[in-house]
Amino acid sequence: MHIHEEFFTVGGVPAVRWTPDDDTTAPRPLILLGHGGGQHKTAPGILHRAHRFVTSGFTAVCVDVPNHGDRPTDDRYQHIATEIQARVDSGDELAPLLAEFQALVAEQTVPEWQAVLDHLGSEAVGYWGVSLGCGLGVPFVAAEPRVRAAVLGLGGAAAPASAAAAAQITVPVEFLLQWDDERVPREQSLALFDAFGSAEKTLHANPGRHGDRLPEHELDSAVRFFTRHLMPR
Amino acid sequence: MHIHEEFFTVGGVPAVRWTPDDDTTAPRPLILLGHGGGQHKTAPGILHRAHRFVTSGFTAVCVDVPNHGDRPTDDRYQHIATEIQARVDSGDELAPLLAEFQALVAEQTVPEWQAVLDHLGSEAVGYWGVSLGCGLGVPFVAAEPRVRAAVLGLGGAAAPASAAAAAQITVPVEFLLQWDDERVPREQSLALFDAFGSAEKTLHANPGRHGDRLPEHELDSAVRFFTRHLMPR
Repeated sequence: MHIHEEFFTVGGVPAVRWTPDDDTTAPRPLILLGHGGGQHKTAPGILHRAHRFVTSGFTAVCVDVPNHGDRPTDDRYQHIATEIQARVDSGDELAPLLAEFQALVAEQTVPEWQAVLDHLGSEAVGYWGVSLGCGLGVPFVAAEPRVRAAVLGLGGAAAPASAAAAAQITVPVEFLLQWDDERVPREQSLALFDAFGSAEKTLHANPGRHGDRLPEHELDSAVRFFTRHLMPR
Repeated sequence: MHIHEEFFTVGGVPAVRWTPDDDTTAPRPLILLGHGGGQHKTAPGILHRAHRFVTSGFTAVCVDVPNHGDRPTDDRYQHIATEIQARVDSGDELAPLLAEFQALVAEQTVPEWQAVLDHLGSEAVGYWGVSLGCGLGVPFVAAEPRVRAAVLGLGGAAAPASAAAAAQITVPVEFLLQWDDERVPREQSLALFDAFGSAEKTLHANPGRHGDRLPEHELDSAVRFFTRHLMPR
């Protein structure tokens, strides 16, 4: 299968969509991917997953987060990002600052991503995002009824707002946890999983640190999860 | 596919094996299932999984645990089982007594199950067991090099001996946790997962109490897990 990569903007926000070259008329469910902190919408991990989703019957889209990818530098975000990196380097407590940052960015990304769904006319949507993609994904999935299933992870309930948004999520969730995550305290990850309001939710924990490559069998699992919840029977 | 169910004994211990009726000469990997407390080797949950494993390319076997199924009542075990049930009913702390009981039973089941593998001439073996099947499975998988992958769960590290045996396990492990388990404290389950010495181990947590039916997608996952680790590439 050849995959077509199409760059576009919605309200000035740069996005990319992956579709099969030989697309038939049958509508495919869409997977919206949220990239990680410091990443571009075509980061290798995003591209790898997007291609896998397309070869598995979906289309995929990713949108540059403010202050990322092809978007202009935003001094306000840049300042916090610098502070976050300084805390990573010094080993200081990171989670509350990360949560504050992600809540601020989500005020922008939730309506931006909704506008992208409007633009594409998507009905059946899955969301995939870990780390920053989880921090922004939780409020997005909570707010957006077109999202019918979500793979989230590498994030925690550091702030009461995170747990409150998670409690509003009722669609099936597959939640990834890196057992040796040095950035997100394990108990905060478990608290976020606990907070999801979904009747069907599964926690998948694997050995590894925050930035380690996720096991390939988790991508297999994500494909099956989205297939189960988004594909017509 | 028709499935052949064959009852047999090894050293007087009753066991059952499931194979396809139209078996070819190619050897199939074996999945040894450990049944739950109070269950028979053909309990509905065991039978359901055994059939699924056989239709997925494996053979399956289950052995009656002492004081269970077609084995005679053992007063020593019966006494502890009665005490366990009394604690369940009264809500008293259960885990240390369960751990003590399972360690005692495992002294018998480890050599019995090894004798069954000898009898069947099995080389590539997977182990599946939750609850009592986990308590007996951990020391078995730790002791038996023919087991190359194990699905365990609904058990915890209530006793130092459990964690010590878990640390000796180095084969891939898929570990199931019921998020609302009222019998095994969550932190003891997480401690058992943490203790496994395996480089590849995955924790799967789902909502539900100890005795609730496990999600069907976990059986799908177990099939893929065993396929990945036991089937020739």
